[in-house]
Amino acid sequence: MHIRLKVWFEVDGEYIFGDGRAELLRLIEQSGSIKEAASNLRMSYRHAWGQIRKLEDRLGTKLVETRVGGKGGGEASLTDAAKEFLSDYEKFRNNLDVFIQEESRKDLRNIFFK
Amino acid sequence: MHIRLKVWFEVDGEYIFGDGRAELLRLIEQSGSIKEAASNLRMSYRHAWGQIRKLEDRLGTKLVETRVGGKGGGEASLTDAAKEFLSDYEKFRNNLDVFIQEESRKDLRNIFFK
Repeated sequence: MHIRLKVWFEVDGEYIFGDGRAELLRLIEQSGSIKEAASNLRMSYRHAWGQIRKLEDRLGTKLVETRVGGKGGGEASLTDAAKEFLSDYEKFRNNLDVFIQEESRKDLRNIFFK
Repeated sequence: MHIRLKVWFEVDGEYIFGDGRAELLRLIEQSGSIKEAASNLRMSYRHAWGQIRKLEDRLGTKLVETRVGGKGGGEASLTDAAKEFLSDYEKFRNNLDVFIQEESRKDLRNIFFK
C-alpha cells in the first residue's frame, strides 16, 4: 500500500503553485535556460514563460532574470527571492512527505499497514 | 492563498482508498442504504457496490453488511471493522489538514503568507 499526495496553492480557484512549477524553477536554475527547462517538461517556451509571469504577478516578486546574449542566445537564472522561495517550498514538501508516511502508518496501521 | 490537497492510497498504481471512498462509506452508514449513498455521490448503485467489493478484497475485510427486506428492499450498514477504519482515516485526514495549514504558513510565510 502506497500513499500518494498532490498539494498545490490556489487563489480564487486558480492554480498558482505546486510541484510542477517548482520543477520548472528548479530546471531553469540547473540549466540556465528557460527553453531547456521547458523542453525537459515537454512544454513550449511560451507556455513556460507564461507560467513564470503569472506566478511573478501573483507573488508581486521577480523570480526569473534573463540576460540577452551568451550561449543559445540568452541566459536565465533565478532571483534570490525565487531561490529562497524554492528552497522553502522544498523544505515544506519534504516535511509533508515525512509527515504523511509516519502519520498514515500510525493512524491506519490496523487495516492498511498490518 | 489557499492550500489544496489530494491524498489517496494505491497498490500497484491502482487507486484503493481516498476521500471519495471514505465519503461513500460515511453516506452508507448515515443513510443505511447503498442506493441512497450512491445517488448522493451521483454514481450508480452498481458502481458503488463495485468500489466496496474492490476495497473489501484489497483489505481482506468485510466492510458493508446488507440485510434483505426493510424499507426500500434492504438495509446496509458498516461492519465494526469499517467503522473503525473510517474513524481512523478521518483522524488521519484531520491531522493532515492541520499539519499542512500550519506547516505551509511556517515554511512559506516569506512569500505566500506575508
